Amino acid sequence: MHYYIQKLPMEKVLRDPIHNHIFIQHQVILDLINTREFQRLRRIKQLGTTSYTFHGAEHSRFSHSVGVYEITRQICDLFERNYPSVTDNDGLWNDDERIVALCAALLHDLGHGPYSHTFEHIFQTNHEAMTTKIITSPQTEVNQVLRQVGPDFPAKVASVIEKTYPNPQVVQMISSQIDADRMDYLLRDSYFTGANYGNFDLTRILRVMRPYKGGITFDLSGMHAVEDYIVSRFQMYQQVYFHPVSRSMEVILSHLLKRAQHLYAKDRLQLKGASEFLVPFLTGDHTLTNYLELDDGVLNTCFAVWRNSGDEILSDLACRFLDRHPLKSVKITPAAEKYLPTLESLINQAGYPPEYYMDTNDSYDLPYDAYDPSASKPRTQIELSQEDGSLVELSAVSPLVKSITGKVSGDNRLFFPREMLAMTDQNDLFAPVYAKFKQYIHNGAVVKPS
Amino acid sequence: MHYYIQKLPMEKVLRDPIHNHIFIQHQVILDLINTREFQRLRRIKQLGTTSYTFHGAEHSRFSHSVGVYEITRQICDLFERNYPSVTDNDGLWNDDERIVALCAALLHDLGHGPYSHTFEHIFQTNHEAMTTKIITSPQTEVNQVLRQVGPDFPAKVASVIEKTYPNPQVVQMISSQIDADRMDYLLRDSYFTGANYGNFDLTRILRVMRPYKGGITFDLSGMHAVEDYIVSRFQMYQQVYFHPVSRSMEVILSHLLKRAQHLYAKDRLQLKGASEFLVPFLTGDHTLTNYLELDDGVLNTCFAVWRNSGDEILSDLACRFLDRHPLKSVKITPAAEKYLPTLESLINQAGYPPEYYMDTNDSYDLPYDAYDPSASKPRTQIELSQEDGSLVELSAVSPLVKSITGKVSGDNRLFFPREMLAMTDQNDLFAPVYAKFKQYIHNGAVVKPS
Amino acid sequence: MHYYIQKLPMEKVLRDPIHNHIFIQHQVILDLINTREFQRLRRIKQLGTTSYTFHGAEHSRFSHSVGVYEITRQICDLFERNYPSVTDNDGLWNDDERIVALCAALLHDLGHGPYSHTFEHIFQTNHEAMTTKIITSPQTEVNQVLRQVGPDFPAKVASVIEKTYPNPQVVQMISSQIDADRMDYLLRDSYFTGANYGNFDLTRILRVMRPYKGGITFDLSGMHAVEDYIVSRFQMYQQVYFHPVSRSMEVILSHLLKRAQHLYAKDRLQLKGASEFLVPFLTGDHTLTNYLELDDGVLNTCFAVWRNSGDEILSDLACRFLDRHPLKSVKITPAAEKYLPTLESLINQAGYPPEYYMDTNDSYDLPYDAYDPSASKPRTQIELSQEDGSLVELSAVSPLVKSITGKVSGDNRLFFPREMLAMTDQNDLFAPVYAKFKQYIHNGAVVKPS
Amino acid sequence: MHYYIQKLPMEKVLRDPIHNHIFIQHQVILDLINTREFQRLRRIKQLGTTSYTFHGAEHSRFSHSVGVYEITRQICDLFERNYPSVTDNDGLWNDDERIVALCAALLHDLGHGPYSHTFEHIFQTNHEAMTTKIITSPQTEVNQVLRQVGPDFPAKVASVIEKTYPNPQVVQMISSQIDADRMDYLLRDSYFTGANYGNFDLTRILRVMRPYKGGITFDLSGMHAVEDYIVSRFQMYQQVYFHPVSRSMEVILSHLLKRAQHLYAKDRLQLKGASEFLVPFLTGDHTLTNYLELDDGVLNTCFAVWRNSGDEILSDLACRFLDRHPLKSVKITPAAEKYLPTLESLINQAGYPPEYYMDTNDSYDLPYDAYDPSASKPRTQIELSQEDGSLVELSAVSPLVKSITGKVSGDNRLFFPREMLAMTDQNDLFAPVYAKFKQYIHNGAVVKPS
Repeated sequence: MHYYIQKLPMEKVLRDPIHNHIFIQHQVILDLINTREFQRLRRIKQLGTTSYTFHGAEHSRFSHSVGVYEITRQICDLFERNYPSVTDNDGLWNDDERIVALCAALLHDLGHGPYSHTFEHIFQTNHEAMTTKIITSPQTEVNQVLRQVGPDFPAKVASVIEKTYPNPQVVQMISSQIDADRMDYLLRDSYFTGANYGNFDLTRILRVMRPYKGGITFDLSGMHAVEDYIVSRFQMYQQVYFHPVSRSMEVILSHLLKRAQHLYAKDRLQLKGASEFLVPFLTGDHTLTNYLELDDGVLNTCFAVWRNSGDEILSDLACRFLDRHPLKSVKITPAAEKYLPTLESLINQAGYPPEYYMDTNDSYDLPYDAYDPSASKPRTQIELSQEDGSLVELSAVSPLVKSITGKVSGDNRLFFPREMLAMTDQNDLFAPVYAKFKQYIHNGAVVKPS
Repeated sequence: MHYYIQKLPMEKVLRDPIHNHIFIQHQVILDLINTREFQRLRRIKQLGTTSYTFHGAEHSRFSHSVGVYEITRQICDLFERNYPSVTDNDGLWNDDERIVALCAALLHDLGHGPYSHTFEHIFQTNHEAMTTKIITSPQTEVNQVLRQVGPDFPAKVASVIEKTYPNPQVVQMISSQIDADRMDYLLRDSYFTGANYGNFDLTRILRVMRPYKGGITFDLSGMHAVEDYIVSRFQMYQQVYFHPVSRSMEVILSHLLKRAQHLYAKDRLQLKGASEFLVPFLTGDHTLTNYLELDDGVLNTCFAVWRNSGDEILSDLACRFLDRHPLKSVKITPAAEKYLPTLESLINQAGYPPEYYMDTNDSYDLPYDAYDPSASKPRTQIELSQEDGSLVELSAVSPLVKSITGKVSGDNRLFFPREMLAMTDQNDLFAPVYAKFKQYIHNGAVVKPS
Repeated sequence: MHYYIQKLPMEKVLRDPIHNHIFIQHQVILDLINTREFQRLRRIKQLGTTSYTFHGAEHSRFSHSVGVYEITRQICDLFERNYPSVTDNDGLWNDDERIVALCAALLHDLGHGPYSHTFEHIFQTNHEAMTTKIITSPQTEVNQVLRQVGPDFPAKVASVIEKTYPNPQVVQMISSQIDADRMDYLLRDSYFTGANYGNFDLTRILRVMRPYKGGITFDLSGMHAVEDYIVSRFQMYQQVYFHPVSRSMEVILSHLLKRAQHLYAKDRLQLKGASEFLVPFLTGDHTLTNYLELDDGVLNTCFAVWRNSGDEILSDLACRFLDRHPLKSVKITPAAEKYLPTLESLINQAGYPPEYYMDTNDSYDLPYDAYDPSASKPRTQIELSQEDGSLVELSAVSPLVKSITGKVSGDNRLFFPREMLAMTDQNDLFAPVYAKFKQYIHNGAVVKPS
Repeated sequence: MHYYIQKLPMEKVLRDPIHNHIFIQHQVILDLINTREFQRLRRIKQLGTTSYTFHGAEHSRFSHSVGVYEITRQICDLFERNYPSVTDNDGLWNDDERIVALCAALLHDLGHGPYSHTFEHIFQTNHEAMTTKIITSPQTEVNQVLRQVGPDFPAKVASVIEKTYPNPQVVQMISSQIDADRMDYLLRDSYFTGANYGNFDLTRILRVMRPYKGGITFDLSGMHAVEDYIVSRFQMYQQVYFHPVSRSMEVILSHLLKRAQHLYAKDRLQLKGASEFLVPFLTGDHTLTNYLELDDGVLNTCFAVWRNSGDEILSDLACRFLDRHPLKSVKITPAAEKYLPTLESLINQAGYPPEYYMDTNDSYDLPYDAYDPSASKPRTQIELSQEDGSLVELSAVSPLVKSITGKVSGDNRLFFPREMLAMTDQNDLFAPVYAKFKQYIHNGAVVKPS
């Protein structure tokens, strides 16, 4: 039998708290899971610094990846059973697309590194480009497995992830406003954080999914389930993904890496131990192999070395990160932005170089992609199909969804050392500085000083 | 107000998927959580290699520790409300014991290192002794917090964990056949693995708990809830904690560390990078500080270095561990033990040094402590209280519990390279060796060759 | 000890799927539960005809009532622990109010009859007035229990339910936009229907509740939990409470009772059997005793008798109700209302007297009370308290809630015999009538005929 | 298309809290659900008097029946997908059996009447015989639907339920130690009572089910899931089905019906109202039509009439049943049985005719069918299949199951008026009787008087 469709003699099952079981039915999927590059995802947390806020959220990108695979597998099963293509181009589901869809689902996050967003920001890497690179580079085990299907198969899988694959049904399964990726992470992050807001009725949504020429639509009868999914997503962003404490830990991480970069540029920072894994990134000259050696543990081990560094700032930031001492944060309204220079000056006076101890951060820096059809990269709309076959866009029939459509949501915050708000006695050298600083903070926001 | 009983101006809440919320009400508890030694538990998985089998089980000892704290807090609340001590020695609950109980609950696992059981086995460390050491050594942040309560308070907390504290109610809350520790880990491990067997009715059990002079008893009306807890625990051992694949990964880990030890003893193994963190343990000369620098990420980073080592065995075992290539395993009955030397010889012939590629392991090597009153360290029995106040031991009233009481349960297994069972063509050099080996394996067990 | 505060020697526990356990701690509560009037609630379904759509929704008003009691008990506990009143009129919680709050919570739905809304509509009864009557009439067992507390206690309890009780905290616990009543029924109806939309985080909401002089407020930090509750409520109305099939069954029930009323007025409808229980209502001359004899089973037994009646319409409607043959329904937009007379005429031509076989119904006839501060009976707003103590109204800080605030939601539908849409062959006498009728129906709505 | 295999143009979905959705795919299934006889199951509680103990347990036989259908449907799907028969008699699954299996699953409880077990006991009816009768009698709507498939189809469906159908796979799906019936009721009763003991891993069990010539077996790898199911069942019997309060209410019901029978035999008890529905059963001369007119509401309505009867005993028992005033109960060990005559005499002296106010009841009178291969009706054993295809009986590999195999479990109890244990003052006429009675009761059991 051709490797492409080779089934396992007996399907394998992974126990999963979200989907109960994950069913592995094809040899190629099992082989991909067993590659070194895929196993590496076990050592990278799905939510990075979020586990500093929600201690249950220690799940890895591995578990999310197999979850996305499983949802995609279920969609394929439903489409095959209920909407099998009969003639070319009839807008129904061609099950020959199953394996390419499953591989893309499984591998879509393969290029993520440790603390992805911060790391990428500092070191100018890009996890999407990395995903493609890992899939298409002949030296990786993943590529070797995929090539067994055919020489052009790696590129095909990569093109689904890059959304250039010709069949929009396959692309939208993996990547659209309501896809296997988002559905898995909402359910999974909700489960592991313990914040129940991410729950929605997956079974119901799968049941109303329909393939059509333009991609995937949803039966109008399932409108409320889709609506509930959108509301859940909105709530998860508000309450979990944008949580100020997690963002504060990202600020510290970012400053820590920046400091290392600075020291390395200056005098080749006496790097010991695990830090060697980071050197290629500090110099900006790194290979795919270098990238694949990184994971959360490697970075944390570097920080454990830096904790004992002679550089006070590097050492202090490493401690703050490892021992979880977040910066304090407050909201900044546009009207209050004018006070920031004064606050920066006070932080500096109190002995904290603002470059490393102060920051502002609005949540749009974070991976937010609420429904917004007018964006520069316009998103695929969620379309519902009516009884007579015509389509209607979701926000046109759901007032709830309409209320959050295209709205930028999130807040701009100022981060600074908690010590600035300390209760101090009069003998403290910095007491007057702290007192002045506190005049600018009220009800959790920067305000005109009283 | 004395620090001992100082409450937070506003209680803090940690979101937790098991207990929904964890309530921090005292300054001393918050301060303990914020110590470096306690935060380190975030970087140590609760279940070690189990996450290789159940990918959801990536939760840390941090989350378990705060869970044990929370259950203990709830027990204290219930005891205070319903069974407050009126006169000395009346066998009821004296709420002055609350803080020492809460601290002991929170800190009881503080001494765990990465992959505890294997690590301890190879390097002769002991997590219980370490817990005491961290609590009582003046250099730790934990000790500094506890000393604020009083100079003898660290020793007091340690004595609860060591079961030498005079009040048996406090000791049994933290450590008995049905304590806050076991109740949290069953619920938590069940939740994160997705194996539902660990579920039982915590609320009901807490409701029937009663303090008495001898410690803690349970109202007979709650017998079935206690029974269900025991059965759940039994099932979790059978199905999760003793899972052959997790044990196989422990075997590999153990061999990997043994190989490093061997190489280091021989010629100071050219150690680079993160491996330096392990040197004190390879030489057998380590301090508390050395111990506290270890975590899962540090060990994995060592293995990432060793992966590229010139020693083939070290490199191969490191790859097997990081990339999850478990050894295969089968059961060994006592009658079949006599075939092990032959199998060892075949494994050797196939090119795998048995010292590093073969092992036997019965599950009693693992942390098993099923109910066994006749053990060398006799355990506190679970006592139920009848209407007229008399006590009756659990297995006397529950046939289900009786059936598993004192029974040694688990299996003895042989671990070997999966390649020994490979389908091979006749040209393979080792084909005859494999063929012979396979004659000894049938229905997942070592058997008399056919 | 005074009966008012007399605790049970040992608290009683009811197992409950929503709250796990319901704790009965006071003698007066146990005595109330054991009254004949309260036990009668076991025989009245909480959701009436909704179980025809969601077959799991067979739970009774009894289970909801003890649930409301339990939530109120938990609120009292939290208030007593965290916000105990110190001086008169300090806006904090006076625990002397506990028993009156608990009694009102338990009894708030006591006056409900079978299929409440339809029954009341036809027979001009009112469940709220009945609740008061049962509580205050000396002949009831409930009144006799309450009088043991004091002669004016029944009136006091009734005044809480009628919202005239002076303490707004007590009133708002039982009856406000976010009260124990609504919180219990959302969770309960969600659980029993299996529609997960009604879920929200009860623990979190209880934790952020605060008493103040004006009643009850919520800490701003819990805004998202409150928001989620409002959204859940909205979704439950949209998807469960307003479900067209349940409303269709209510239409049939209403027509059935109307027909009986008509026949009885004409010639004393030869009533047999259980129907005697209904005679006082058919004649309009009924006592409290008559009312208390009614329950779902009694009404259904009447219908079982009528099923065999000589009157064809009565018999047919009784069968349709008992055997669940709902009318078909479609939407009516305002623009399409002008076609209703034509449709009525066609239904008549097909042999269905429209008076009994056609109806329109908008969902506002149903018990809808979405958030609407501008209503004729203005509702208590949901207020959130900020760090400095000032209050802010919920929809001012939640765009989600704002989007559904004050919006009338629901739809106007036309109900008619499913046979009107039947596939017919040309020989059918009514084929031309059906064909004409079908021209007016498209995409589930009344439209201009094609 | 033949009616037998006629699919609905679009599958219908029932929302179900246990299985999430129930999928109706065939016209014949939808038509059966819409029959009068099947709809009647909505008006009969699944657990009879159990809802007096667990107030959530108000679910109907309707909801259980569609649940059994759904599990059977899932088994058929799995068998069809994974084990389709290729040649006659190959022991694999022939999907032509699907519809007969589904019909039998749906209809297996059709003959149940109100409060089945007590009713049958008093009136000598039998729900299994009734099921067959309803299916095979030409006058029922169910029979009319089934006959559309073929003239012998009703008998075929009935034979599956009666276990005489030749294909053991079909029979065992519906009726064996681990069948769709038991699996649904455990999950459902557990869910609605809120007692979590009935939970087990349905998905896992379905996955390891295998058809073979002798019926259905389970892959050995799923042993623990099967074990957990057996333990769950045992626990549900112990804690829910045998609950003393529910049994007490059954005792009252039984006495109430017995009293009516007695009065009717004596002087044609002046029956009014709903009681007419019962006359055919009081006289012992009833038809299928009479039987089908009964439901819980009809019986309760009779009791509501009897509540006002001139016969004091009838009236008192009716009140006790409707208003939930259970008899008190205590255990009887064999050694204590000799005291029963004395206790009977005391109860009589206190003014309670023992015939109506005292009873003994062991739980084996209740529908208990724990695993017992040596029973007079020997049950199908649960067989597990090993790697090499050989079968092994469950209790041979599970010590947990072994511990409860063949064990009679349950207790013998004495029921009597709670007043016998009342606290009385010396002036009470019956004080000496009560005092003497109380000497025989200790720790919830009948004992030798002190």
